[in-house]
Amino acid sequence: MGDQQLTDGECSGTKVLTMETVNPNVVKMEYAVRGPIVTRAAEIEKELAEGKAKPFETVVKANIGDCHATGQTPITFIRQVVALCTYPQLMQSPMFPEDAKQKAKRILAACNGYSVGSYSASPGIEVIQKDIAAYISRRDGQPCNYSNIFLCTGASEGIKTILKMLMTGKSGSEQAGIMIPVPQYPLYSATLTEYNAYPIHYYLDEEKGWSLEVSELNRALKDAKGKCIPRAICIINPGNPTGQVLSRDNIENIIRFAHKEGLVLLADEVYQHNIYAKGSEFLSFKKVLMEMGPPCSWIELASFMSASKGFMGECGFRGGYCEMVNFQDDVQKCLLKSISVKLCPPILGQIVMDVVTNPPQEGDPSYASFQEEKNTVLKLLAEKARLITDLFNSIEGISCNEVQGAMYAFPRIYLPDKAIIAARNMNQTPDFFYCSHLLEETGICTVPGSGFGQKEGTYHFRITILPPLEEIARVMELFRDFHLRFLNKYK
Amino acid sequence: MGDQQLTDGECSGTKVLTMETVNPNVVKMEYAVRGPIVTRAAEIEKELAEGKAKPFETVVKANIGDCHATGQTPITFIRQVVALCTYPQLMQSPMFPEDAKQKAKRILAACNGYSVGSYSASPGIEVIQKDIAAYISRRDGQPCNYSNIFLCTGASEGIKTILKMLMTGKSGSEQAGIMIPVPQYPLYSATLTEYNAYPIHYYLDEEKGWSLEVSELNRALKDAKGKCIPRAICIINPGNPTGQVLSRDNIENIIRFAHKEGLVLLADEVYQHNIYAKGSEFLSFKKVLMEMGPPCSWIELASFMSASKGFMGECGFRGGYCEMVNFQDDVQKCLLKSISVKLCPPILGQIVMDVVTNPPQEGDPSYASFQEEKNTVLKLLAEKARLITDLFNSIEGISCNEVQGAMYAFPRIYLPDKAIIAARNMNQTPDFFYCSHLLEETGICTVPGSGFGQKEGTYHFRITILPPLEEIARVMELFRDFHLRFLNKYK
Repeated sequence: MGDQQLTDGECSGTKVLTMETVNPNVVKMEYAVRGPIVTRAAEIEKELAEGKAKPFETVVKANIGDCHATGQTPITFIRQVVALCTYPQLMQSPMFPEDAKQKAKRILAACNGYSVGSYSASPGIEVIQKDIAAYISRRDGQPCNYSNIFLCTGASEGIKTILKMLMTGKSGSEQAGIMIPVPQYPLYSATLTEYNAYPIHYYLDEEKGWSLEVSELNRALKDAKGKCIPRAICIINPGNPTGQVLSRDNIENIIRFAHKEGLVLLADEVYQHNIYAKGSEFLSFKKVLMEMGPPCSWIELASFMSASKGFMGECGFRGGYCEMVNFQDDVQKCLLKSISVKLCPPILGQIVMDVVTNPPQEGDPSYASFQEEKNTVLKLLAEKARLITDLFNSIEGISCNEVQGAMYAFPRIYLPDKAIIAARNMNQTPDFFYCSHLLEETGICTVPGSGFGQKEGTYHFRITILPPLEEIARVMELFRDFHLRFLNKYK
Repeated sequence: MGDQQLTDGECSGTKVLTMETVNPNVVKMEYAVRGPIVTRAAEIEKELAEGKAKPFETVVKANIGDCHATGQTPITFIRQVVALCTYPQLMQSPMFPEDAKQKAKRILAACNGYSVGSYSASPGIEVIQKDIAAYISRRDGQPCNYSNIFLCTGASEGIKTILKMLMTGKSGSEQAGIMIPVPQYPLYSATLTEYNAYPIHYYLDEEKGWSLEVSELNRALKDAKGKCIPRAICIINPGNPTGQVLSRDNIENIIRFAHKEGLVLLADEVYQHNIYAKGSEFLSFKKVLMEMGPPCSWIELASFMSASKGFMGECGFRGGYCEMVNFQDDVQKCLLKSISVKLCPPILGQIVMDVVTNPPQEGDPSYASFQEEKNTVLKLLAEKARLITDLFNSIEGISCNEVQGAMYAFPRIYLPDKAIIAARNMNQTPDFFYCSHLLEETGICTVPGSGFGQKEGTYHFRITILPPLEEIARVMELFRDFHLRFLNKYK
C-alpha cells in the first residue's frame, strides 16, 4: 500500500500515527481466522487466476464457517421475505408464495415509514424481538420477555457489547478478568486484548472429548487471583473450534461454579441448530439454570445467537441477537443507552433472524419446502461431520475427537521433532508451519491451533466441515498425501 | 423491566453488575439523538394508540435524520439491485430493467459462492471498493487508490474504528486528545467518553454563520496543553447540527492548522450530497489538500461517507465507507487487522453504497428515472431548508442561521429568566425543559442543544428539515403557537 500511496499523492513527511504511537492494544490484537494463512490463500488465488503453475487447481477455503461460500444454497423462504421487504412492488408478483407476502407485510408494517431503509429502535424491531422471545420460550419451555432481547450486527457485536459492560475502566490488578476456554474462538481473546482486560484461560480436556471440568475452572480462577477482578465466564456450546456438545450435568456444574464465584455467564450458543452426534442434544444455559431453580436461576446470563450459522448460514446479512437474563434493571438501561449510539442493527439482518425464529408453520404454503431445505442442510452437515472425523482418525499421526456439533473439526497433529525445530528456525509456531505447508502444497486453507490456544506442546488445526460432500473425499485424499509426505520429510 | 424480569424467573440475589461495578465509561456516555426526549416521544405514541387524549394527534419525529421514516420514498434502482442480488431468481422477471440485472450480476460474481449470504473480505467487496474509488476520483479530480477504502456498518462504525486507532492506551495527561466542534454530532463525544479520551472542544461562531475560525482552534489547543496528547481534529462538513458548508478558504486554513500542529484530519463528509444554499458547494478535504500540494498534501486524512443520508437515505442498510489518505503502510495494515475481527460489513449495505457511487450512466435504461428521483429529493430538501430557516427567523425570540447543507436547523432560542429558573428548579437544562414542553404540548420531537454542546448561556434545539413539505407549514404553525405561549408564560 505504501508504494501505491506514493503514486496517489507523493505522500511523505512525518506521520502522526506510527507503530509506536498507534493504540497499543490494537497492535497486540490477533485474529487467526483471518490471519496470515488466509491472506496468503487470497494471494495464491490471484496467482492461480494469473495462470501461475501450482501443484493444485483451486484453493479450498476451509478456514471459516462461511456456508454459502462453499456451495450451500440459501433457504428460499428467507430470501423471498427479504426481497419482498426490500422491493414491496413484488407483492404483486406470482413468483412469491402467500405466506412470504404476509410475513413481509407484517414486518414492513413494523418499520418506520413502511421502509427497511429507516432506522429501527436500537434493540431492534419490536415485532422481531417478540418473535425471538416466542422462539426461545418454545425452545426452553420457559418464559422469555421480549424486552430482554437486543438484536445485533452478527453475534460478534453482541458479545463485544456485553464484554464492554463488564470492563472496570481500570488497569493492573483492578482490570476485569474474563474466563475463556482454551481452545476458544479468537473473537474473545482479540476483544479482551482490545479492551485491555485479563483473559483467565481454562483448558478443555482433549482426552475426554474436550470436556469442561469444574476442577479446571477452579484451578484457572485460583491462578488469576490478585491479577484481576474476575467478572464473567464465557462458554461456547456447541464448541468452536472443538465441536463438543455439553451435557446437562456439565452445564449444571458450570452454573453452580458461576453462582459460587459470583460470575456473569456468557453463553455463546450460535451453533444451537448444529447438533450431529447420536445422544447429543442442545440444552440452553437459560433452560438449565431456570430448571435448577433458586439460587442458580438468579444468576446473570447473556446468551448469543447468530443468523450466520445453523441451517441458514446467512453470514453476509450480519444478523444476531442477545438475550439478557437476570440483569439489574438500571444496568440493562445503561446497556440500551450504549447501543443507541450505533443507531440500529441492519434491518435485513434482523429480518433474517425473524424468519429463522418464526419460520412457516404447518399448513402454510411454504412449510414443507422450508422444512425440507432445512433438514437437507443439517443432514448433510451431520454426514460430513462423521466422515471427516473418521477420515482423520484413519491417518497416522492424527487424532480427532468426534465432531458432535458446530461446523469444525480440530484434529491433533503429532509432529516429528525435526519439523518442530524447522518451524522454530523460521520463527513460526509448529502448527503455523504445518498449515502453511499444507496451503502451499495442496491449496487447503485451515487455521493453526495456536490461533485458538492449545495445551503447551500439542498442535492442532481447525478445518470446517463445510465443503461439498463430493469434494471432501478429494480434499481428504490430498490432505493424507501431504501429511504422510510431511511426516516422512521430517522423521 | 425489573418487574417483568421478576415474573420471568423470580430473579433476585446479589448482582455482579450494578451501577457501581459496570464500566464507568459506559455510565458516563450520553447520546442525545436517542435520549430521554425521544424515549418520551415513543411513550406518547403508545399513549395515543391507546386512545389517551392529547392536544395533538400524532408525534412528529424531527429528532433524527431518518428520511424514509418521514415519508421519503426509496430510490427505485437501489432497491431493484438489492432485491435482484438477494433473490437471483428475479433475473427472469420482466419487472426489472436490464441495467439493474447487469449490475446485480456483476456484484454477485464478486460475492463468494455467488451469494450475498457469504462473508466478504473485511474491508468490503473489491469491486465495490473500486467503484467507490472511481467515484471519489471523479468527484475530486484526484487519483484514489481502492485499497485505501474500507466499507463499514454505517459511517458511525468507521469513525469509531479510526478513533480507536488514535487512542494511546494510557490515561491522565497521556490520554489521546481529539478536537471536536461545539456544537457537534454526539457520536463523537459519546465515543470519546467510551474510550476515555480527552475531548478538545473548539467553538463554531454562531454570529458568523457557524464559521470555523483558526484563532479558535489555536485557543482550544492551547487550553488542552498538559491535559492530553492531541492526536486529531474532527470536522463535520456539511455541519451537523449546524448546517454550515465550509468554503475553500476555510478548509485550507484548517488543513494548514492540522499540518502545523501534527494532527490527523477526520473529515465527516456524510452530507456531501446535501448542499442547498446559493454559492455553497461541497469541497472534500481530500481535494483541497491535494490541490494545496506538499507539505499539506502529505497529512493523514480519514474521510467518512454514509448510505444513510444524501438523496438515498437508506439508514436501515447500515452502509458506509472510509477513505484513508497518507496513512503509514503498517498502520493501515494494523487497522485492517483490527476490522477483521468483525468479519465484514453487511453485504447489502455495501451494495447500496455501490449503487450510490456507481449509478446508472447516460444511455442506461434507468438513467433518466434515477436522476429524476434523485433530483426531486434534493430539490425538495433545498426548498424545505429555505422554508424552515425563514419561518424560524419570522418568530420572536428565535434566530436561525441559514441551512446551507445537511438535514437540520439549529435555531437559537432566547429564553426568559423565569423559564431558566423553572428549568433549574427541575434540575433540567433550560433547552431540555423547553424541548420537553414542546413535545408534551405539540407532539414535535426535537433534540435539545445541550446534547450537541453550545456556548455557555445560549440555548438551541436541533430539528430535521425532513417532514413532508405540506406538513412543515402545519408543524411550524404549531411551533409558533407553542413558542409564543411559552414566552408569555415565563415573561
